[in-house]
Amino acid sequence: MSRRTDADTPRQPSQIAILRYLRIHGPAARIDIGTATGLSPATVTSLTADLMAQGLVQESQGSNGTNGATNGNHGATRGRPKVLLDLVPNAACVIGVKITINLIEIALGNFKGEIETSSEHSINTRDLDEAELIATLIKLIDGFIADHKGFSSRPPVGISIAVQGVCDSNSGEIIWSPALRHRNIALTKALGERFGGIVQMSNDANCIATAISQNTNLHRDGDFAVIMLGYGIGMGLVLNGSVYNGDFGTAAEFGHTKYQPDGPLCNCGRRGCLEAYIGDYAILRDARGLIDLPDANSLHPSEEQMMDLVERARKGDEDLADLFRHAGKVLGYGIANLIALLGPKQIFITGSGARAYDMMEPELQRGLSQAQVPELRRGPQITHLAWDKDLALQGAIGQSLLRHDENMFQAAPVAN
Amino acid sequence: MSRRTDADTPRQPSQIAILRYLRIHGPAARIDIGTATGLSPATVTSLTADLMAQGLVQESQGSNGTNGATNGNHGATRGRPKVLLDLVPNAACVIGVKITINLIEIALGNFKGEIETSSEHSINTRDLDEAELIATLIKLIDGFIADHKGFSSRPPVGISIAVQGVCDSNSGEIIWSPALRHRNIALTKALGERFGGIVQMSNDANCIATAISQNTNLHRDGDFAVIMLGYGIGMGLVLNGSVYNGDFGTAAEFGHTKYQPDGPLCNCGRRGCLEAYIGDYAILRDARGLIDLPDANSLHPSEEQMMDLVERARKGDEDLADLFRHAGKVLGYGIANLIALLGPKQIFITGSGARAYDMMEPELQRGLSQAQVPELRRGPQITHLAWDKDLALQGAIGQSLLRHDENMFQAAPVAN
Repeated sequence: MSRRTDADTPRQPSQIAILRYLRIHGPAARIDIGTATGLSPATVTSLTADLMAQGLVQESQGSNGTNGATNGNHGATRGRPKVLLDLVPNAACVIGVKITINLIEIALGNFKGEIETSSEHSINTRDLDEAELIATLIKLIDGFIADHKGFSSRPPVGISIAVQGVCDSNSGEIIWSPALRHRNIALTKALGERFGGIVQMSNDANCIATAISQNTNLHRDGDFAVIMLGYGIGMGLVLNGSVYNGDFGTAAEFGHTKYQPDGPLCNCGRRGCLEAYIGDYAILRDARGLIDLPDANSLHPSEEQMMDLVERARKGDEDLADLFRHAGKVLGYGIANLIALLGPKQIFITGSGARAYDMMEPELQRGLSQAQVPELRRGPQITHLAWDKDLALQGAIGQSLLRHDENMFQAAPVAN
Repeated sequence: MSRRTDADTPRQPSQIAILRYLRIHGPAARIDIGTATGLSPATVTSLTADLMAQGLVQESQGSNGTNGATNGNHGATRGRPKVLLDLVPNAACVIGVKITINLIEIALGNFKGEIETSSEHSINTRDLDEAELIATLIKLIDGFIADHKGFSSRPPVGISIAVQGVCDSNSGEIIWSPALRHRNIALTKALGERFGGIVQMSNDANCIATAISQNTNLHRDGDFAVIMLGYGIGMGLVLNGSVYNGDFGTAAEFGHTKYQPDGPLCNCGRRGCLEAYIGDYAILRDARGLIDLPDANSLHPSEEQMMDLVERARKGDEDLADLFRHAGKVLGYGIANLIALLGPKQIFITGSGARAYDMMEPELQRGLSQAQVPELRRGPQITHLAWDKDLALQGAIGQSLLRHDENMFQAAPVAN
């Protein structure tokens, strides 16, 4: 067989692999890029020369830490400086937007995936109808662009929206969100009419999964799931290096897998979903059955309302503590199902609802060991990740950059 | 940016894509190969010339049906003959082995993935210890090779073993199988000492998923799950075109996801698994509580025992019929969890246990609609697939050929 060079094979061209590696790992020597991507030294040299000529990559003589590396320290050996390659921060910029109950956040991300600046807008999201939501978003994004002079010379190459709730990432539709009263909102289409094809959207848990997959301090290899505790229970699944959205764009709705048929009513309208035991609204609902609580919005509990419950439980209200313990047990059963079905290497638990994780965790482990087939108990590592509310925005920005990379290099088939 | 040819990019070289396409679709014109693989006409011409020179592919002037196409009829237009390309059947051969309770089957597959011949061996598998199992398999495989003269000129390039039960496909270990009394058997390693690195093994449901993924009559596109009803409840998951084994090699143990905490005891030692309601042994156990049944092996019910129950139920024993109906409901709940989590495009239900599918199906649909979030009810298509006991062998052969293709073309990085 003759060896051949074949230009039109790659589904993921080498350029994308290099950009992705640098974005995740920070500045790296050519040899390390080669090792990581499986590209030959000559190819790395040639491709990175191209990327430098395009202004996407630059050399940075570098000991790490002074050159903006977000993660890792590959290829930099102290006292023996190597030429490191790094992404050019201002080679492109993207916008991340996050929609949660009564709060819309917007961030500017640079080509390295770093958040350069962000703004928060308290807006009664649940009072907006579909047209008002779209108009509000357009106004906020337009204002954000106007506020940042840099955009005049380099308009954003991507706008990615992280939405709390059930979303179809494929069609760009918000199916149902606790932040909104209305359902089935074709968000990407509507925003696309103003901003073009650079708009995409995704469930917030999927954005967080993207952010974790691009952070080597958190995740090194293997498939993982991130479980987001909060108003509801979300999940992002990373399989074979990519967030798994499923054929219908709605994966992974872990919160609506069942703990018990005919269990308590879930906000989705069904009974016995994990969320109906673990979600903030479920815990508050049950707490109201145990103790007198001041009148307040029960369906959309605030952080203050939830922290009040947590503190009462910590101070010795055993009935309230049992609610958190039981939520832990239910979560353990849910995780056992996930392990049986997929067996990921790592499971992260995060979200504002993890405020009571210390109370949940022992029962979570007990539930897991009650439910899990002993022979399948080979992993995974379960990690509590302190809640970082920027993680979803970070992931939205990461998703925009992934798509931008693809748009730059995935495009035209090459005739030969 | 200069366009470049880049030899060391591909993770899946184009040759593999071509072989795979021909194996799945049968004889095809070059232009259709190009459309399907995304390769340019010139590259298809050049690569297929190579494959022909290597004796892997041949031209077959062809109207379909006379040239051994297993599926599909792409590129053949009646009355206007095109030159079609096809795999050379005897370019390589592989062996598939299937281990189920008291039966070992062996099949010879050709390079097109067709079963050329097979043999069945009634063996009391549960009486074998680990060494006896290995010795028996070696003897049977050696005998099978000796019986088929063709092997003298072309020894098998792959041996793939489909095992009923929980398996680690990564390590090649049988963790637990109803066919065996012993656990944690390092099967691939032991057989590898006799036959070399060409041995692999997999759960039977994963083999069936492979077979379905290679059969365009059954499956066209999108992710799918195949649920195998029988002694236990197995699942094979195909995500992004490949069987998903998971990081620990044990996916997808759908049968050990839970219907109800503290439900009936499952053979795995835990309670409330789907299998503890739907598996043959579970239905027989419950049937014994309802009616007098002759003494017989309850833990490993025979087809006759199970058919007896089905017939009694069909003839009007409503209590027995309720067992099957309830199994259907439990299956519906399990499928709702799968849909929430992954949302595959298609779900196949097959296996010997599908003998009572007609009694299960209405309750399955009811359970599904009770459990499924209305907004996620976008699919999938649920298809009952008549049980074909050759499907696992077919898939084992398919897995061997996939690996053989990779061994031929995935190997050496190309210097440039």
